[in-house]
Amino acid sequence: MSTSMEAPSDAASVSPERIMEVGLGFWASKTLLSAVEMELFTHLAGHPQDLETVRGRVGLHPRSARDFLDALVALGFLERTDGVYSNAPDTDLFLDKHKASYVGGILEMANVRLFKFWHTLTEGLRTGEPQNEGKGGGVPLFEELYADPARLKQFAAAMTGLSHGSNIEIAAKVPWADYETFADLGTAQGDTAVQVALANPHVTGIGFDLPEMAPIFEDHAEQNGLAQRLSFVPGDFFIDEFPPADVVVMGHILHDWNVEEKRALIEKAHAALPAGGALVVYDTIIDDDRSQNTFGLLMSLNMLIETEGGSDYTASDCMGWMRSAGFTSTRTEHLAGPDSMVVAIK
Amino acid sequence: MSTSMEAPSDAASVSPERIMEVGLGFWASKTLLSAVEMELFTHLAGHPQDLETVRGRVGLHPRSARDFLDALVALGFLERTDGVYSNAPDTDLFLDKHKASYVGGILEMANVRLFKFWHTLTEGLRTGEPQNEGKGGGVPLFEELYADPARLKQFAAAMTGLSHGSNIEIAAKVPWADYETFADLGTAQGDTAVQVALANPHVTGIGFDLPEMAPIFEDHAEQNGLAQRLSFVPGDFFIDEFPPADVVVMGHILHDWNVEEKRALIEKAHAALPAGGALVVYDTIIDDDRSQNTFGLLMSLNMLIETEGGSDYTASDCMGWMRSAGFTSTRTEHLAGPDSMVVAIK
Repeated sequence: MSTSMEAPSDAASVSPERIMEVGLGFWASKTLLSAVEMELFTHLAGHPQDLETVRGRVGLHPRSARDFLDALVALGFLERTDGVYSNAPDTDLFLDKHKASYVGGILEMANVRLFKFWHTLTEGLRTGEPQNEGKGGGVPLFEELYADPARLKQFAAAMTGLSHGSNIEIAAKVPWADYETFADLGTAQGDTAVQVALANPHVTGIGFDLPEMAPIFEDHAEQNGLAQRLSFVPGDFFIDEFPPADVVVMGHILHDWNVEEKRALIEKAHAALPAGGALVVYDTIIDDDRSQNTFGLLMSLNMLIETEGGSDYTASDCMGWMRSAGFTSTRTEHLAGPDSMVVAIK
Repeated sequence: MSTSMEAPSDAASVSPERIMEVGLGFWASKTLLSAVEMELFTHLAGHPQDLETVRGRVGLHPRSARDFLDALVALGFLERTDGVYSNAPDTDLFLDKHKASYVGGILEMANVRLFKFWHTLTEGLRTGEPQNEGKGGGVPLFEELYADPARLKQFAAAMTGLSHGSNIEIAAKVPWADYETFADLGTAQGDTAVQVALANPHVTGIGFDLPEMAPIFEDHAEQNGLAQRLSFVPGDFFIDEFPPADVVVMGHILHDWNVEEKRALIEKAHAALPAGGALVVYDTIIDDDRSQNTFGLLMSLNMLIETEGGSDYTASDCMGWMRSAGFTSTRTEHLAGPDSMVVAIK
């Protein structure tokens, strides 16, 4: 073999294919993001269509329409039978905007914001500085978001898309029979609160977030028939007291902040809880060996792009902070996808 | 299960994980591209290092250095033993710039150009217009490239990175014993010519490209000890006659052009070949069902981003054009990774 002229003898078993697949993986990624942006899966839900019909409805130029749809077929996100395109089971359930199970909000946000901010990842890695709206003296992400109701709602929906599967697991895996009240800190749209309340009819809960989030939270609770059992309390979790509750939940919150801020939030939760009360923290928690949860490690780089000092962390890191804050027992459990929770009992 | 409250009964078997993995797949992609940009794998080749040493040598800020390296561990591109980082077998062979087997040129180009151009894929899909340097009246890619020797060399090296594995296969799979001369059209750095000549000592070849490519081609031939058997002929393959040869090769050329231009190039090849001569076309050729070669379909979208009318195509498409041009027999064969060739005999 001519390969032996330039590579060690084990070269035959080593190929550059995975390097190319991942290195050019933004092609597949952006193709799916564009499909979400164009609401392709919403158009096709329940209405399989041929090329020309899809093209007209979605607004695709003839030049690349077929390549675009067939790339989505090859990626497994569409199916094609006798020239008629339809959604695959996952895109039909999770990317049709008319279904409550829609999780595309995070992908809409990735499409309009994160993709372009990640372009300067190298600069972020060299400087330690965020690469989003706040870069170079711009308005930091959260300030800008909370000042713009439409964008805030999009962001809140994006967060729901990222956490919905885990919220369902939390509703089942925390021993809610032992508790009557909870407070969900940084609740955003309130999907954690909604899923916990839906699955545990004896529980009442509070969603806590900055005041601008109130109408977004209240809409979501109302739409799920939970206006009686879920209420919104406005506040800043670094400044204001936490609302009293048997269980404090922080989902996809701690990774936004640096280690000192993380510890301060855990200490405030400890102070707010009754004896026997529980703190439930969940995030894309990194495995203790920091070698398996790829998505968690990449999410931590996303926190570099998005925040001043945030990062993801291991369950072992989190349990250490919890014990220092005075919690007596801690345990960790996998939720959905890349998410795990750590539960600490006071 | 609470999932039954909002999803059909088969929901348990359907998860959004692959949607999230692909939709946010640009995180993994850009992480690898940044590592290539920083020459991380070149630094580590033969010199495994701990976190602080890598950090200092590569120039990483402390904030996210560990997350960055551990994300590359989780992705399988680095290994870590007792806190010491080293290259994985594939990155050591293919992403160390000091090895002839380096294929990172295409990823360097993706990092500085394609990632940002793909950000406006949706606009490209809606308008059919390229999204690169030529967008909105800018200077088209090839004009700009050929006017800048440094960028032209980077582009040529990128093309070699994308085609090297297939060039080795072509050197083995075309029956070169039947032929004495070849002309490689759009030769760029000339890696196809080099691999064919290395593996087939009786063959002499011509690299044909615009005159600006001459020194780049001649360097590559010289470095491989082939200055005696490979020569460069300057020309524009749409304007000038093809150089006479027993075999005409077009590798990653036809997909740059629209169907009429593709057919014109195939017709010119037919006219230039002797009876019994062969035309060898290779590209990331799409499977005839247009449902399997994901990379080929995405490459075709990359041609939307990069060219006025280019697209990838199936072997069946290509054989049709070849038969129309007068070739008597055609066959297709897989090369490396996503590449296949179509061979036509006059």
